[in-house]
Amino acid sequence: MIAVMSANCTEEEIQAVQNHIAQRGFSSQISRGVERVVVGVLGQPYPGLQDELEVMSGVAEVIRVSAPYKLASRKFHPENTVVHVGNVAIGGNELVVMAGPCAVESEEQLMATAKAVKAAGARILRGGAFKPRSSPYAFRGLGEAGLKLLAQARKETGLPVITEVMDTEDVDLVARYTDILQIGARNMQNFTLLDVVGKVRKPVMLKRGLSATYQEWLLAAEYILAGGNSEVILCERGIRTFETYTRNTMDTAAIPVVHRLSHLPIIADPSHGTGKWHLVTPMALASVAAGADGLMLEVHPTPDTAWSDGAQSLTFENFAKMMDMVRAIAPAVGKVVAPPVGQGARA
Amino acid sequence: MIAVMSANCTEEEIQAVQNHIAQRGFSSQISRGVERVVVGVLGQPYPGLQDELEVMSGVAEVIRVSAPYKLASRKFHPENTVVHVGNVAIGGNELVVMAGPCAVESEEQLMATAKAVKAAGARILRGGAFKPRSSPYAFRGLGEAGLKLLAQARKETGLPVITEVMDTEDVDLVARYTDILQIGARNMQNFTLLDVVGKVRKPVMLKRGLSATYQEWLLAAEYILAGGNSEVILCERGIRTFETYTRNTMDTAAIPVVHRLSHLPIIADPSHGTGKWHLVTPMALASVAAGADGLMLEVHPTPDTAWSDGAQSLTFENFAKMMDMVRAIAPAVGKVVAPPVGQGARA
Amino acid sequence: MIAVMSANCTEEEIQAVQNHIAQRGFSSQISRGVERVVVGVLGQPYPGLQDELEVMSGVAEVIRVSAPYKLASRKFHPENTVVHVGNVAIGGNELVVMAGPCAVESEEQLMATAKAVKAAGARILRGGAFKPRSSPYAFRGLGEAGLKLLAQARKETGLPVITEVMDTEDVDLVARYTDILQIGARNMQNFTLLDVVGKVRKPVMLKRGLSATYQEWLLAAEYILAGGNSEVILCERGIRTFETYTRNTMDTAAIPVVHRLSHLPIIADPSHGTGKWHLVTPMALASVAAGADGLMLEVHPTPDTAWSDGAQSLTFENFAKMMDMVRAIAPAVGKVVAPPVGQGARA
Amino acid sequence: MIAVMSANCTEEEIQAVQNHIAQRGFSSQISRGVERVVVGVLGQPYPGLQDELEVMSGVAEVIRVSAPYKLASRKFHPENTVVHVGNVAIGGNELVVMAGPCAVESEEQLMATAKAVKAAGARILRGGAFKPRSSPYAFRGLGEAGLKLLAQARKETGLPVITEVMDTEDVDLVARYTDILQIGARNMQNFTLLDVVGKVRKPVMLKRGLSATYQEWLLAAEYILAGGNSEVILCERGIRTFETYTRNTMDTAAIPVVHRLSHLPIIADPSHGTGKWHLVTPMALASVAAGADGLMLEVHPTPDTAWSDGAQSLTFENFAKMMDMVRAIAPAVGKVVAPPVGQGARA
Repeated sequence: MIAVMSANCTEEEIQAVQNHIAQRGFSSQISRGVERVVVGVLGQPYPGLQDELEVMSGVAEVIRVSAPYKLASRKFHPENTVVHVGNVAIGGNELVVMAGPCAVESEEQLMATAKAVKAAGARILRGGAFKPRSSPYAFRGLGEAGLKLLAQARKETGLPVITEVMDTEDVDLVARYTDILQIGARNMQNFTLLDVVGKVRKPVMLKRGLSATYQEWLLAAEYILAGGNSEVILCERGIRTFETYTRNTMDTAAIPVVHRLSHLPIIADPSHGTGKWHLVTPMALASVAAGADGLMLEVHPTPDTAWSDGAQSLTFENFAKMMDMVRAIAPAVGKVVAPPVGQGARA
Repeated sequence: MIAVMSANCTEEEIQAVQNHIAQRGFSSQISRGVERVVVGVLGQPYPGLQDELEVMSGVAEVIRVSAPYKLASRKFHPENTVVHVGNVAIGGNELVVMAGPCAVESEEQLMATAKAVKAAGARILRGGAFKPRSSPYAFRGLGEAGLKLLAQARKETGLPVITEVMDTEDVDLVARYTDILQIGARNMQNFTLLDVVGKVRKPVMLKRGLSATYQEWLLAAEYILAGGNSEVILCERGIRTFETYTRNTMDTAAIPVVHRLSHLPIIADPSHGTGKWHLVTPMALASVAAGADGLMLEVHPTPDTAWSDGAQSLTFENFAKMMDMVRAIAPAVGKVVAPPVGQGARA
Repeated sequence: MIAVMSANCTEEEIQAVQNHIAQRGFSSQISRGVERVVVGVLGQPYPGLQDELEVMSGVAEVIRVSAPYKLASRKFHPENTVVHVGNVAIGGNELVVMAGPCAVESEEQLMATAKAVKAAGARILRGGAFKPRSSPYAFRGLGEAGLKLLAQARKETGLPVITEVMDTEDVDLVARYTDILQIGARNMQNFTLLDVVGKVRKPVMLKRGLSATYQEWLLAAEYILAGGNSEVILCERGIRTFETYTRNTMDTAAIPVVHRLSHLPIIADPSHGTGKWHLVTPMALASVAAGADGLMLEVHPTPDTAWSDGAQSLTFENFAKMMDMVRAIAPAVGKVVAPPVGQGARA
Repeated sequence: MIAVMSANCTEEEIQAVQNHIAQRGFSSQISRGVERVVVGVLGQPYPGLQDELEVMSGVAEVIRVSAPYKLASRKFHPENTVVHVGNVAIGGNELVVMAGPCAVESEEQLMATAKAVKAAGARILRGGAFKPRSSPYAFRGLGEAGLKLLAQARKETGLPVITEVMDTEDVDLVARYTDILQIGARNMQNFTLLDVVGKVRKPVMLKRGLSATYQEWLLAAEYILAGGNSEVILCERGIRTFETYTRNTMDTAAIPVVHRLSHLPIIADPSHGTGKWHLVTPMALASVAAGADGLMLEVHPTPDTAWSDGAQSLTFENFAKMMDMVRAIAPAVGKVVAPPVGQGARA
C-alpha cells in the first residue's frame, strides 16, 4: 500500500501518516520525488487501512499494490485447480459442457432433456429448482420436488447435476440432492450465503455479478475458499452495460483474465450472456476459443413453451449442432470434448 | 402486451400467435399496418408470456405496455405513502435526516455520534451491526452487541434507529432491536430476504442495487409489498458507471422519477453515492432540491480512525454545517427540517 | 509516475526500468517494500512513458500520481476563472441561465422564445443551427439561415447567443454570428475541432462526452486552453448508463468534482441530462443546489410540434415557474439570479 | 410507429393524436385493448415523429417497430456485402488480417513490421499517421510524412494499407495515399466527417464508438451509405464499462449481432478491445470463432519502446504464433486464412 501525499503537504502531515501506520503495527518508508512524497506501507496491511489513510490531512491518494485476495490468486497457487465431480474433471484438458433446462418443469421435460444433452456430449445436467425472478409474480421453481427430479435424472443418465441455491436455509437441502451448488449472479455478494457454502464439502459454481469487477468476483470466491471449500468454479454470464439488444454483454475477455489472475477454473454461460438463442452458438464457440474450461447452456424440448428463459434456450437439434462445432474448435486451444453418445443426439 | 410480427411473417404464424395467447387464457386483437402486423394481448398477462411469444416463429419483438408492478405503482395508489416511525413521518412534509456511523464500533463512538446528530437536527440514528464487506478479511460488524448499543442509544436520545439486515436467519433478531430494517444494495435482489421482510411488521428501507434499473428496484419493493408489508422506503445510493473518481455515480434523477412512478417515499444517501466526504454536502443539497423525502448520512467523531467508510464520513462540525444549508434550501421545495436541539450541534 | 514491480522481479529488470527512465531524460528513485519494489520517476514525464514502462518485463503496474492536465487544473490556478460575455459573467456570483429552442426553426419561433426566456430571467439565448443527429434522415438544422436569425434575436433582445459548431470548416462562419461556441458531447474528443476553437478568441462551452471520465473531459478542455483560448465553460449533460428510462443519467456530482479539480466554470443541462420535460425542473434545482455556475435549458413555444427534442423542452410557462424556484434556491448556495423582466415571463 | 395511450386517456386525446399523424401526412389505425388504447402510424414515418407524439397529452409511450436504418439493414439487402481492396475481399470466405504498428514512427519501424506481418499471413497493413490522443501533449502522428511511408511500404510489400482520417479537411489528402479510410471510435458520430467519406470512392472502416449502441453504429454506417459509398466495413473495438482492468470491454457478441442486423462485413480489433498484449491472442481467437470477417491487430518490432499503445502491441513472434492459431480455428467456422509467406514470419 502506498500513500501519495498532496503536492503541498507539510512535514507534520507526512509524520502523522507514518505515526498512524506505526500505530496499526506496520513499518513505513518514504520516497521523495520532485513533485510528490510517497509513503509506502511495508507488510501486508488489512484493506481498511486504505480508507484510514485516505482521509488523513495531506494525503492525495492511497494505492493498493498487491491483490486483496490471496487464496484465489495464482501468485500464491501457480498450478491450475481441477475440480472433480464424479468422473468429470473441470479445469483440466477436457472442456466440460453443462446443459439442461432453465427451470425443472416436469419429469417428462427433464428426462427428455437430460437424455438429449447426454447423447450430444454434455457431461453435467443443469436445471433450476429455486429460481430468482425479478417479479414476485413469476414462476419461482418447483423447490424440493424439482430437486427430486434432478436426482432421478442423475440416476437414469449417470450425469452429475448442478442447481442453484438461493438462501442459507436451503443449503443443506440442496446439497443433499446436487453435485455442484450454483451461486447466482444476484447473490454473488450475498456474503452470508458465501460463508455457508464455504463450509460445505461440495463444489460451488460462482456466477459473476451483473456489475462485478474481476476483483470483486475473486474476492467473493475468496469468501468460499476462506471458509475451507477449495472447489470453486467461476462462471462468466455477461455484465450489464448500456446495450439493450442483448440481455447482457458477455465479457469474453474475463476468461483469459481469470486464467491469469487466478488458478480457479472458469466456464462461460452464453445463454444468459446473450439472452437470444441465435447468439448462443457463436458465443459458445468464442468462449471455447478464448480458453474456457467449460460451457453452461440452456436446452429445452420446446423453447417456445418454456416457463422461463425460452428465448435463450436451444432446441435439442441446435444443441447437438453446437456441440459438433465445439468439438471442431476445442483441439485448436488444446481441449478435448466428449463425443456424442449413441444416436439420440439429434432426436 | 403487444407482439410485433416480422415484416415477412405468414398468416399461419399470425394465427399460431393468436392460438398461443388463447391457450394461455387471454384474448387478442390484430392491427394491420402497412409494414407490420401487431397482435395485442388483452387483459393482464403474466410476465413469462413475453418470453413465450418472443421465441415464436414470425414474431419480431414483444413489448410490454403496462408496468409489471402493481402495488408499488402510483397508477393504482395515487396518494403518497407516509411511513411512521415513532413520532417521525417519512414521506410527508418533513424532510427526515437519518445519520450516524457506518459501523457501530463502541459505546463511546455511538453515543457521542447519536447526541451530535440529534443536536444538529437528525431524526433517526443509523449504524451498522452487520456489515457487508467485499473482502472476507475486513471488519464485518459487532453483530448483536452492536444491536444492543443501538437500542441503548435510542433509549438515551429518543431517536428511532435503522440498521441493516443481511440474512433471512437474522431478520427476527434485528427486528427485535431496530425500528427500520435496511436492505442493502447488494441484497436488493436477494428475493428470499425480500420475502421474509415482507412478513415483518416494521418499516423496510430498500436501497437501490448497484446496477438496478428503476423497474427492477420497484419490482424488488413489490416483493415486500406483496408479502403484506406496506411500509417501504426507497433509498438512492448511487449506481455503478465507468467513472471511478467517485465511488458510485449518484443518480439524483431517481428522486423525481420514483415520485412519478410510485407512491413510496424516497431518500438519498450521498455518503455512499459519492464515497468522498467533500462531495457529501453538495449532493445532499442537490437531493433535497430534487425533492427527496429524507437523507441518510454517515457521521463519525473522527473519520480518519473509522473502521469502515471513513473517507465518506462527515465530522460532527461538517454535519451541523450541512444541516444548516439543508434547512436553507428545503422550504423552496415545500419541505420542513427539524431545527437544531440545544447547543450540542457544533460540539 | 510510479512503476510497481512484480513480486518476483529480478534486479536486472529493476535496472532495465531505471535505464529506460534515464534514457527518456528523467531521474528515478527506488523504494523497496517487504513485498514489492517501487520505482518512482522524478520530474514531469509525458503520458506515453506510462505505456512504455507498463510493457517492460518485471513491471506489474504503472501509476500516474499527478494529473495529466495542467492549464485546466486548480492546482496551478487556484482562483476561479470567470468568463465574460457582453455584460454577463459566468463563473462568478451570478447563476447564469441560457435558454432557447433545441433547433432554430423559424423567425416566429425564435423571437417568441427569445422574448419569453428573457422576460423570465434568462441571460443568454441558445438555439441550434447545425444539429448533430444520429440518423442521416433527421432534420439537421437551418445552417447559416439559423445563425442569421440568432443574430437578429440578439439585436432585438440584447441577449448574447450560444450555438453549436460541429466542424472545423464551420468555425469561422459560426464565430462571426455567435457569442459563445458550443462543442457538443459527440465532439468532445474531436481533437482537430478542439485545436481550432483553441485559436478562436470567443468563449467555448465544452459539453461532456456520453462516456467521458472527468479526466478525459478536463484533458479535452486542456486542448482548447493549450491553443491559447482561456475562456472555457464546462457543461454536464448526462452520461450513458444502463438505465434507459431517462435519456441519459445526469451526473450531478460532476459539478462539485469539477469545482475541486479545476478553476473553470461548470453549468448543467438538465434537458439533455434527463430527456423528459417533467424531470427538467427538479434536476435544474438539484444542479443549482450542487453549486452549478449556470443552467442550459430547452424552451419551445409548443413542444409538441418541435422539430427536435420536444419531449425534453419546457413551455414558456413551465420555464418561468422553474426560474421562480431557481431564484428561491440559489441564495442558499451563495448565488444570485437575474429577476424576471417586465410582465412577459408568463405570456 | 406505435403510440401507446395512457390508461386514463380521453377520447379527445386519442383524436388529437390521430389528427397530428394526419397533419404529418400519415394514416393511423386504432387498437383498443382492455387496459390500453394503441394508435399505430401507417407508412414510413420520419424519426422526429416519435418525439412529437411522445409529448402529446394522453400518450404514455411511443415505440418504433421498424429499424431506423435502411441501407445498412439486412432486411432490404439479404446477401452479404463483400468489399474489395486490391486482390483482397473482405466479407467473403477469407478471414482477412490487418496488422501493423499503432503509429507510423520511422521507415525502419514500418518496413520491418510490414514485412513481418506479411510473412505471417497478414493481408493489409495498418499504421496511424494522424493519431487521436486524449492529451494534447502526447505524440499525435507524423502526418503526411507518415502517409508517404505507408505508400512506400505498400510498394515494397504489395499489401494494401489502412489508416485513420480524423478531419474533413484531411480526407482528400489521406484518400490519395490509403486504400481504406479508417474512422476512429471517437469520431463515430462526427457526422460531417461521415458525410464527407460518404462521397469518397474508397472503402471506409467504421469503428464502434466507446458507448455506441448497435443501432447508433448502424445509423452512423447509414450516413456513409446514404452519401453513396457502399463499401463500409464495421469494426468492433470494445466498449466502455465499469471494468477497468481491461482498457475496454470487448463485445464479442457484436459480431453475430451485426451479421444478423446488417449485410456489412465486421472485423474485430482485440488490441484496443483489451489494451493488454497477453489478452490479444485469446480475444482474436474468440472473434474468429464468433464469425468475424477479419481482425485488426497492433504489431511492433519492440513494443516496449513504441511511441503509443505499446502495452497492447504484439511482437513479430507473438503475432506469427497467433496467426498459426487463427489458421487452426478458422476452418471450423467456414473461413480460410492466408498461409505464411516465405520464412520471414518468425524473424
